[in-house]
Amino acid sequence: MQILGVDPGIGRTGWGSIKIQSSHFTSHNFGCIETVKDLSIEVRLERIYQGILAIINTEKPDVLAIEELFFNTNAKTAMVVGQARGVILLAAAQKQLPVTVYTPLQVKIAVTGYGRAEKRQVGQMIKTILHLETIPKPDDTTDALAIAVTHAFSYKMK
Amino acid sequence: MQILGVDPGIGRTGWGSIKIQSSHFTSHNFGCIETVKDLSIEVRLERIYQGILAIINTEKPDVLAIEELFFNTNAKTAMVVGQARGVILLAAAQKQLPVTVYTPLQVKIAVTGYGRAEKRQVGQMIKTILHLETIPKPDDTTDALAIAVTHAFSYKMK
Repeated sequence: MQILGVDPGIGRTGWGSIKIQSSHFTSHNFGCIETVKDLSIEVRLERIYQGILAIINTEKPDVLAIEELFFNTNAKTAMVVGQARGVILLAAAQKQLPVTVYTPLQVKIAVTGYGRAEKRQVGQMIKTILHLETIPKPDDTTDALAIAVTHAFSYKMK
Repeated sequence: MQILGVDPGIGRTGWGSIKIQSSHFTSHNFGCIETVKDLSIEVRLERIYQGILAIINTEKPDVLAIEELFFNTNAKTAMVVGQARGVILLAAAQKQLPVTVYTPLQVKIAVTGYGRAEKRQVGQMIKTILHLETIPKPDDTTDALAIAVTHAFSYKMK
């Protein structure tokens, strides 16, 4: 079972690929698609879309895990993130990849056992769970791995 | 000069294609891409994306006109609309179609001369400007034509 976690954003889309073998998780690969501000929004979206397609082709995940729509932000941020999320979901649909969603609260509880965990605590747990030498950078990458780990725990419980 | 106006939405994405010849505008074609609620979000986005690609292929516009990110809404709506807007902008980028944006205020002023115009007034003016027999339905289609007309006026002024 291979899980691709994605944390969408127009400037940075974090991604992390996790493999479950028996009860062991390993991080297969992870990174961040970055787009610079001086490109038009449509070109930035095209880069994100092509980036995710390439990652799906390379990592061959069985499922794509992404955060639920979030509501604790302003409309402008939500619209900008929504655009990035849209092209990522499109790539999943075109690759016939099932999509699973988790709320930020579910992710924090799954990874740290605590719904109010801070970014640093999530990062530390991701490092431990995935036997990494350091906490992945930037935060978007760690967040993507955290979403993938959440799906891995949820899958194991089933 | 052929202008494609688009009013993005997950359930209904209105579109309208306008032709400018000398000082005359004609509506070339218009309609609405509808997706039903019982499909997954990613499949709905795929239908919108394929729909817009097909319209670009058929209508061969020189420019795509779309509303600016709007801020007077809640974050949930903004995120949902953002996803649809994302796949439409992606289609434009892939077809190397320039994108131009207008605020709802610019659209109302361009079409009716009045920034607080109601939907009905916008619809009446669109019917008159484009020599249509009736106001196009649903509202999303009229809104898409209104965005295209706004770009047509702005283009004529230049």
